Amino acid sequence: MNYTELNKQSSREIMPGFHGKFVHSDNMTFVHWKIDAGAALPEHAHLHEQVVNVIEGEFELIVDGESRTLKPRQVACIPGHAKHSGRALTDCYIVDVFYPVREDYR
Amino acid sequence: MNYTELNKQSSREIMPGFHGKFVHSDNMTFVHWKIDAGAALPEHAHLHEQVVNVIEGEFELIVDGESRTLKPRQVACIPGHAKHSGRALTDCYIVDVFYPVREDYR
Repeated sequence: MNYTELNKQSSREIMPGFHGKFVHSDNMTFVHWKIDAGAALPEHAHLHEQVVNVIEGEFELIVDGESRTLKPRQVACIPGHAKHSGRALTDCYIVDVFYPVREDYR
Repeated sequence: MNYTELNKQSSREIMPGFHGKFVHSDNMTFVHWKIDAGAALPEHAHLHEQVVNVIEGEFELIVDGESRTLKPRQVACIPGHAKHSGRALTDCYIVDVFYPVREDYR
């Protein structure tokens, strides 16, 4: 099996306050984010479907103009090409999953 | 966005001790499992790629004869068609992700 210990992987700060650890499977990319309170995700879009799994904290997510405050054990599916942005209301631990693989995150 | 509050969804005990809450996106299936200590996953295989994200607890996973004890912030990728089995060594909270969608979990 392809096996990763995230605690042994250095995080990469892809955007200010977004500290990610990455796993690429055959078809998907997984990012385990530690996000600092107040960190902002500028509006953007990508071809990949993205599913946001909130483990800890609260994150305001805006998808195609619809805003939600995501809390632990809430899951949001962002369709491919949908414009989205957001902001960490508290420190967060979020598992994002992308299909297909995010080649730009390798 | 497709948005799910898992706390408002009843869990389904797919196998003894495996209590799952399910989200299906366009291409993937997400299962947030609460697994009872001692629960056993019999050996099986499926065409779907499966990625196991351990959030809490310890789970012994065996894939094609290779055994690993998975702990929090460890991630295992199980290729499609690979034989796998396992056992919860403690109570666990695991997020499993499947590609493509598990139609049998709808």
